[in-house]
Amino acid sequence: MDSAERIERDIETLAGPDYTLSDEAIRRYAYTDVYRRTLDYFVREVDSLGFEVEEDAVGTLVARNRPKGEPVFGVGSHCDSNRNGGKYDGTMGVVTALEVCRLSVEQGLDLPLQLISFLEEEGSGYGQMLLGSRIVAQRVTEEDLRERFRSIDDGRSFWEHAADAGYQPDRWRECAHVLDDLTGWIEMHIEQARVLQDTGNRIGLVTAIAGYVHADVVVHGRGDHAGATPMDLRLDPTVPMAETILELERLAREAGQGTVGTVGEIEVDPCLINAIAEQVRFSLDIRGPVEDAYRGVAREIGAFAERAAAARGMNAEYRERQTIPPTPMDDRIVGALETAAEATGEPYRRMHSGAAHDTMCVADRLPTAMVFVPCKDGISHHPAEEASPADAALAAEIILNAVQALTRA
Amino acid sequence: MDSAERIERDIETLAGPDYTLSDEAIRRYAYTDVYRRTLDYFVREVDSLGFEVEEDAVGTLVARNRPKGEPVFGVGSHCDSNRNGGKYDGTMGVVTALEVCRLSVEQGLDLPLQLISFLEEEGSGYGQMLLGSRIVAQRVTEEDLRERFRSIDDGRSFWEHAADAGYQPDRWRECAHVLDDLTGWIEMHIEQARVLQDTGNRIGLVTAIAGYVHADVVVHGRGDHAGATPMDLRLDPTVPMAETILELERLAREAGQGTVGTVGEIEVDPCLINAIAEQVRFSLDIRGPVEDAYRGVAREIGAFAERAAAARGMNAEYRERQTIPPTPMDDRIVGALETAAEATGEPYRRMHSGAAHDTMCVADRLPTAMVFVPCKDGISHHPAEEASPADAALAAEIILNAVQALTRA
Repeated sequence: MDSAERIERDIETLAGPDYTLSDEAIRRYAYTDVYRRTLDYFVREVDSLGFEVEEDAVGTLVARNRPKGEPVFGVGSHCDSNRNGGKYDGTMGVVTALEVCRLSVEQGLDLPLQLISFLEEEGSGYGQMLLGSRIVAQRVTEEDLRERFRSIDDGRSFWEHAADAGYQPDRWRECAHVLDDLTGWIEMHIEQARVLQDTGNRIGLVTAIAGYVHADVVVHGRGDHAGATPMDLRLDPTVPMAETILELERLAREAGQGTVGTVGEIEVDPCLINAIAEQVRFSLDIRGPVEDAYRGVAREIGAFAERAAAARGMNAEYRERQTIPPTPMDDRIVGALETAAEATGEPYRRMHSGAAHDTMCVADRLPTAMVFVPCKDGISHHPAEEASPADAALAAEIILNAVQALTRA
Repeated sequence: MDSAERIERDIETLAGPDYTLSDEAIRRYAYTDVYRRTLDYFVREVDSLGFEVEEDAVGTLVARNRPKGEPVFGVGSHCDSNRNGGKYDGTMGVVTALEVCRLSVEQGLDLPLQLISFLEEEGSGYGQMLLGSRIVAQRVTEEDLRERFRSIDDGRSFWEHAADAGYQPDRWRECAHVLDDLTGWIEMHIEQARVLQDTGNRIGLVTAIAGYVHADVVVHGRGDHAGATPMDLRLDPTVPMAETILELERLAREAGQGTVGTVGEIEVDPCLINAIAEQVRFSLDIRGPVEDAYRGVAREIGAFAERAAAARGMNAEYRERQTIPPTPMDDRIVGALETAAEATGEPYRRMHSGAAHDTMCVADRLPTAMVFVPCKDGISHHPAEEASPADAALAAEIILNAVQALTRA
């Protein structure tokens, strides 16, 4: 089997019914049986390559082919999914990192490698994106883990779930050691947009990852009878919400520079056809590679929602959930990847990532870069997600050669 | 005890924990234990007045003080609630009808009366408003009852639930006989708006009930990654939805003549902060006493949603769920009520009802009218709903005197 065939086999295996909670999508998140089986699949594969495998105190998977204390180069991604996810987001990155490890053995290179599969990148289990890598980067507090971060399914804390799964959340500070021996890090991921497809490139070399603001707006109206309450006497919170959705689109377009804004969650209370809502909550996802631009949109949309509600006698609250700055990639690693990409003769381009990735947290501590492969029509976070094992094999070859150049330099 | 005290006792009893599924609201709908206990309360009360009690083939409660075939005058309402309801909507109407029966006995009038408590007015159980009275009026089909109308809680059909509760849904056509002996009908209800409160009236005499259109709009977008999909490449269905919410408000105001429009339900799929929605569904409740006005709004908003979606490369479908024309009340009964109201010396006014009521279905077969009492700040379909037992007692006195005049004339 060649690289593309092995990658395809891995991907298709991990898209099987044993590895997802849903019949209609990949749905996989921390501490579920399907997630455990996914980790076990990778454990078996890297074990067969002679790597030593361990999991950190909350469940991030780490496999290395050098003893602790010796320098290694990091490769990996995450293997959890969006609740309505596809086969490739995250998982193809871990599979490609595994393929880099296989090629290193197969070609007798014995590169010093450490594969990492981070926990809970998508936030599907606890509503917290990049959770595993944020724990590694110590970008959380003990209170977050013990109390604030709660399961979407049952409301119990992340801490309780981690302990029930056999981990030691009280040792979460030791997760930082996952990065101790790394001299650099490369994550491969599907692009999740149309740029590579539309420009005819097979490889994207990421120069920066967009930062973002995640927030919620709650508009408090008054729950009244839909039929009997005259238009002039109602306090309908869906109306300022509608104005805010349109204003967000306008502001994001106006800001330009890759800035995007999305309302992905809407919750109407009580949500009945014949009742004016008492309140609505909606989420804001505002991102871009240029911090001033997207932060400006976040500031303005929060103020807009408050004004729009006040203009109709209502009250709106803007609450920031999470915010992360843009992350520049390392010039030297990007340069090594570019040399390796050029050598293949295949079309590639430099670009920024609009999506967040675990690499944002790794970049706190060491030089990092990312490699993208196209996904069909840019569709991601969705069962229709599609990417090419041949492109991933090309990425594996480029990463292998870049790591070889970087670790021998 | 006087009328107001008896009414207050009934209302407070039926607001107790035995009569609602929720700690925070009145939540009561067909075939639940709490609904059964509510019917049993009325059964005991009318039985003690010497009325004969029966339930029709699906569970509408009927009590009369004359043998079948003899003319009687109908009084009543419904005693189910909105899922997030208050103590008064519906229930206070049945309680007031019961009080009319009590006064007729107490004052030795022995008026020919038939009390009715209709099933499932609010649609909380099966998503179908006025269900019991529509069955009585034969405004449903057997397929609706067997297949289309399904439990919000478990998806099983109305038919199955009715049979499980001991009724005979296959005899639903016989429910029409509930109205056979009635010479007229008066329903008392809380106003569910602010008109009576703001004009300082204790009684509203309803001259017409608004008709309505209930519909849904589904906008089909494309589920994409919120961060990585540029603004120009996304098909975000929340945006045409937002435009439609604002246009509905504009159209309803422009139509005037008491027309109102509400988006009460919004369902976003998949509803994740970091995903552009694949589709959204939202409900439309469009009403008014003037059919041309509100039907015009319904037509225009459906076409608007389709245009708004198409303008952004998406597709929207407008689907009518239910539609009911306005219902004029009977001049003679309204006149008798007005004479009785004038005699009390208390302030009253003629008005239309913005809310739908079971009386709309009764009016198919016989002369009808309605009496409103104020509810605080117009708040209804909500636990904060509040109305005065003294006003209900005044309504009972007026109805008693009107029925006396009408049945002796």
